[in-house]
Amino acid sequence: LVASLRQAPTEVDRFRLLRDDQFLFDFVNPATSVGVTTGAGGRTVAATSENFPAVVGNGVSMTIGFLGPCGMNSPHTHPRATEINFSVNTTLRGGVLVENGARFAEIDIAPGSATVFPQGAIHFEMNPSCQEAMFVAGFNGEDPGVNQVAQRYFGLPPDIVGATLGGLGVQQVADLEALIPDNVILGVDECLQRCNIQR
Amino acid sequence: LVASLRQAPTEVDRFRLLRDDQFLFDFVNPATSVGVTTGAGGRTVAATSENFPAVVGNGVSMTIGFLGPCGMNSPHTHPRATEINFSVNTTLRGGVLVENGARFAEIDIAPGSATVFPQGAIHFEMNPSCQEAMFVAGFNGEDPGVNQVAQRYFGLPPDIVGATLGGLGVQQVADLEALIPDNVILGVDECLQRCNIQR
Amino acid sequence: LVASLRQAPTEVDRFRLLRDDQFLFDFVNPATSVGVTTGAGGRTVAATSENFPAVVGNGVSMTIGFLGPCGMNSPHTHPRATEINFSVNTTLRGGVLVENGARFAEIDIAPGSATVFPQGAIHFEMNPSCQEAMFVAGFNGEDPGVNQVAQRYFGLPPDIVGATLGGLGVQQVADLEALIPDNVILGVDECLQRCNIQR
Amino acid sequence: LVASLRQAPTEVDRFRLLRDDQFLFDFVNPATSVGVTTGAGGRTVAATSENFPAVVGNGVSMTIGFLGPCGMNSPHTHPRATEINFSVNTTLRGGVLVENGARFAEIDIAPGSATVFPQGAIHFEMNPSCQEAMFVAGFNGEDPGVNQVAQRYFGLPPDIVGATLGGLGVQQVADLEALIPDNVILGVDECLQRCNIQR
Amino acid sequence: LVASLRQAPTEVDRFRLLRDDQFLFDFVNPATSVGVTTGAGGRTVAATSENFPAVVGNGVSMTIGFLGPCGMNSPHTHPRATEINFSVNTTLRGGVLVENGARFAEIDIAPGSATVFPQGAIHFEMNPSCQEAMFVAGFNGEDPGVNQVAQRYFGLPPDIVGATLGGLGVQQVADLEALIPDNVILGVDECLQRCNIQR
Amino acid sequence: LVASLRQAPTEVDRFRLLRDDQFLFDFVNPATSVGVTTGAGGRTVAATSENFPAVVGNGVSMTIGFLGPCGMNSPHTHPRATEINFSVNTTLRGGVLVENGARFAEIDIAPGSATVFPQGAIHFEMNPSCQEAMFVAGFNGEDPGVNQVAQRYFGLPPDIVGATLGGLGVQQVADLEALIPDNVILGVDECLQRCNIQR
Repeated sequence: LVASLRQAPTEVDRFRLLRDDQFLFDFVNPATSVGVTTGAGGRTVAATSENFPAVVGNGVSMTIGFLGPCGMNSPHTHPRATEINFSVNTTLRGGVLVENGARFAEIDIAPGSATVFPQGAIHFEMNPSCQEAMFVAGFNGEDPGVNQVAQRYFGLPPDIVGATLGGLGVQQVADLEALIPDNVILGVDECLQRCNIQR
Repeated sequence: LVASLRQAPTEVDRFRLLRDDQFLFDFVNPATSVGVTTGAGGRTVAATSENFPAVVGNGVSMTIGFLGPCGMNSPHTHPRATEINFSVNTTLRGGVLVENGARFAEIDIAPGSATVFPQGAIHFEMNPSCQEAMFVAGFNGEDPGVNQVAQRYFGLPPDIVGATLGGLGVQQVADLEALIPDNVILGVDECLQRCNIQR
Repeated sequence: LVASLRQAPTEVDRFRLLRDDQFLFDFVNPATSVGVTTGAGGRTVAATSENFPAVVGNGVSMTIGFLGPCGMNSPHTHPRATEINFSVNTTLRGGVLVENGARFAEIDIAPGSATVFPQGAIHFEMNPSCQEAMFVAGFNGEDPGVNQVAQRYFGLPPDIVGATLGGLGVQQVADLEALIPDNVILGVDECLQRCNIQR
Repeated sequence: LVASLRQAPTEVDRFRLLRDDQFLFDFVNPATSVGVTTGAGGRTVAATSENFPAVVGNGVSMTIGFLGPCGMNSPHTHPRATEINFSVNTTLRGGVLVENGARFAEIDIAPGSATVFPQGAIHFEMNPSCQEAMFVAGFNGEDPGVNQVAQRYFGLPPDIVGATLGGLGVQQVADLEALIPDNVILGVDECLQRCNIQR
Repeated sequence: LVASLRQAPTEVDRFRLLRDDQFLFDFVNPATSVGVTTGAGGRTVAATSENFPAVVGNGVSMTIGFLGPCGMNSPHTHPRATEINFSVNTTLRGGVLVENGARFAEIDIAPGSATVFPQGAIHFEMNPSCQEAMFVAGFNGEDPGVNQVAQRYFGLPPDIVGATLGGLGVQQVADLEALIPDNVILGVDECLQRCNIQR
Repeated sequence: LVASLRQAPTEVDRFRLLRDDQFLFDFVNPATSVGVTTGAGGRTVAATSENFPAVVGNGVSMTIGFLGPCGMNSPHTHPRATEINFSVNTTLRGGVLVENGARFAEIDIAPGSATVFPQGAIHFEMNPSCQEAMFVAGFNGEDPGVNQVAQRYFGLPPDIVGATLGGLGVQQVADLEALIPDNVILGVDECLQRCNIQR
């Protein structure tokens, strides 16, 4: 279907290739596990050109974050899109470090507010409350991609990671890597203690 | 500020021009009336390059719809961006007519679901419930623009509008124009009756 | 053919897929009815990625308007391109309303002159003379699309249209819709009387 | 004005910066000589971001060719836009050589027809008739640029040109350069003889 | 100067704003320390819109890597451009992990060969030889940006980093951060031993 | 393969379609003659979407110039990309004439320096030394194209070329065309004499 959409001569032709129900993406009960990332801290669900053909040729996509108490979408980047992130019901702890040369900015996103995470910027969203939280992230690309920093960084060859950490041995690197939880992770200790959650 | 952002050599320079608090846009209590559209049916609040400098150079923007009972964001287009629209808490009645040659598609957006309104497509979102509803609309452009179809169409010269309506006289056009409410409007009669609302 | 063009590795490969005669589009005697819009007021002929493969991958298209006496290309938008419109032999009555927040501008396009209709702007071109008129419209996209405002707006569900018109009943909406002529339409009464044309 | 347009936050702001009369460009009696190229074979008039601020931010421009009998817009390229060229009243002799690896294609553009000259392609338009001819060229960029091949090529250092011509001496290069007329030039000998025109 | 370039109406105007010598960037003896990154393993020199105005409006930039024996450009991403990396005189050890869902690919770049590092992909280049090495990296953007993964990741708040590492304490995070050398770093132990270099 | 890459839903999917060895392009011993241009003055080797699928969807390409003594990449343009050109080991004689209205600029590219050749600009690179020289040219497009000015210009119909040269006869044009060597050519006489090379 994506191939047909990519080859269609016009937008009207692309529209014809889709049934009405294909214009809808259900983030709560997604039809497929593609685009769903689940961890101890909650889950994110992404609707992109990978699993939501209605966005193909239209240059948008969306991720909904369902963060449990103290849940955190661990630091990551989006290689091919900027994100505008709206917090629905909690003051999220957000932060962004755009790149070399930029300051770190902590942006706490109040309910009903939004912030911008520029393309390629390292950023995270943590739910510092003991209730469920939800955010809505819009992207200006149909294939934004995600690059979870710690998880992917430690997926590089151990000797390379070790050198980056000032000469750490392969075993020490492996020990560190073993500690890294899959996304969505549990957030900072202070929150876990306050909400009485075991890591 | 926008001019400075547009002239900045790099993204890091743009980031430096903004204070931390300027990365946050509050849709519930916006600092300015710019971007706010209020009518009998509710209000929409837009964060774009007009009122949210953090998006400049980053190619995204967002509108939050606060629709009262039976409230409707009347049919409109966005000239310079595609929208991905997420319904937070109600099944919105949505509809889209992309352009000449395309079918009308009614897309009812269940809570926790999203749909796509392609750039330039005529579309609307109505809250068919008797409670407040909220939607989150992400855009792949920092200046999407809005073109409210009926309101702007009747803003054309009356003789032109009359000709388009098969030769309607100027007075008849003026009578029709006088009927048109400002956005956000009240929706269909069936809903108003059900929720016991006077137009 | 369009699919092959879209998949071709290079521009030279795209060029090779086309015969010399396929680089030419005849607006006077088009080989196909695709892209031709005919009404009581004249006709427009569009060469786009739908019917003119030579534009695929090149990002341009063109529409020629053949407007009869008092003929009007009724108010419309182009969802995916800006238009630059050149009047060949008549002072066209043109008008543009870019979007919410912008003034209406009436631009009378003298012969040998051109104006710009930005992407997504509502605009029209009327021939106020009693002779045939021709315009040449260049677009910065190979699939600009067209959205005839009145015709498409009244193609929305009648209850939605009625609500937009302040609560007009479904029957009244249907009566109005029945009045709307297909494009290319006849223009304003003053012209029809002057040129002695029956609507 | 262009600087103000480039810094404006939104399209509506850009529209506000312009008076109604600034949306119109008169190719027959242009207000300025900027964009006008006159030679023995006729003249071309270009409306771009250099002399028509209404196109700024909108990504279109236009050139009108007024070719005298046998007049020719000598072979040239456009560095930053594709052209779609419509012949108004004559069968123009057109030709295009896209780049290394592509065949030369002769495209005779009948009145009421158009062809496409891809970005960067070498192309020409000649009026093979003994009457005045006009073409309308739309561009998908507000600053397409023009690169007249022979005129610019011989504007390179003579020793470089000479080497390219297999070792021609500087004097021979200068002799050739002296022959090259300014654009718009007179076309092929056969036409000049037929129309009884002296070069 | 960059502001003037950004506001210039045309490419010809931008060209006029620059002197001939401003079209040249010397990577060996750069006129400024802006864009230069020096560490124990060598240095990289970048020519971008920050320090080389000739690229403004032209969408390209370049970095030259001067890697000492065992030197490594530590794992990083480019937020706004894809890189094509050419090794001049050594078989570089390269590696790329595009993003979540992609495999790690080790690409050893032989002298006279090049590879592609897609926008936003984590990648590194190490000189595994005991001689100086040089690479030439072209970018398809004038402001690609650089995001050194380990250095920036550990620049996030320590409690956030700690949570990402499975609950590591703030002190342990600080201890790790203290180990991280500034780029350009020394590479893997095996190389240092072979070349007899102390970290 | 290119067709599959063009149709792939995501960047991760494109990455999966390629084997590790397909991410590497060997300019010294290319696997194919596609992209290789050889003449008396040396050779250029281009890695583009035509012969290096790894660039597809990533918007970059590269050409390496291997210029013999006095060798010259004869004046040419790139229709769809800007070039950033780095000289490895010689002071190249470079020159650029952007387009009509711009001055010619001679830019001598010292070893370890780079210059910018804007999209569509006429430019050349000559090796004025008696040793082999190498340059590395990065492009901001995966299909930049090349348009060798003299060679392609004289590939136009002889009567058209003749008219452009002020009425030169067909035979004289043919004589000139016969002189033009294929790229990569030998450069200026002064160099050939100095290095004792026969043209």
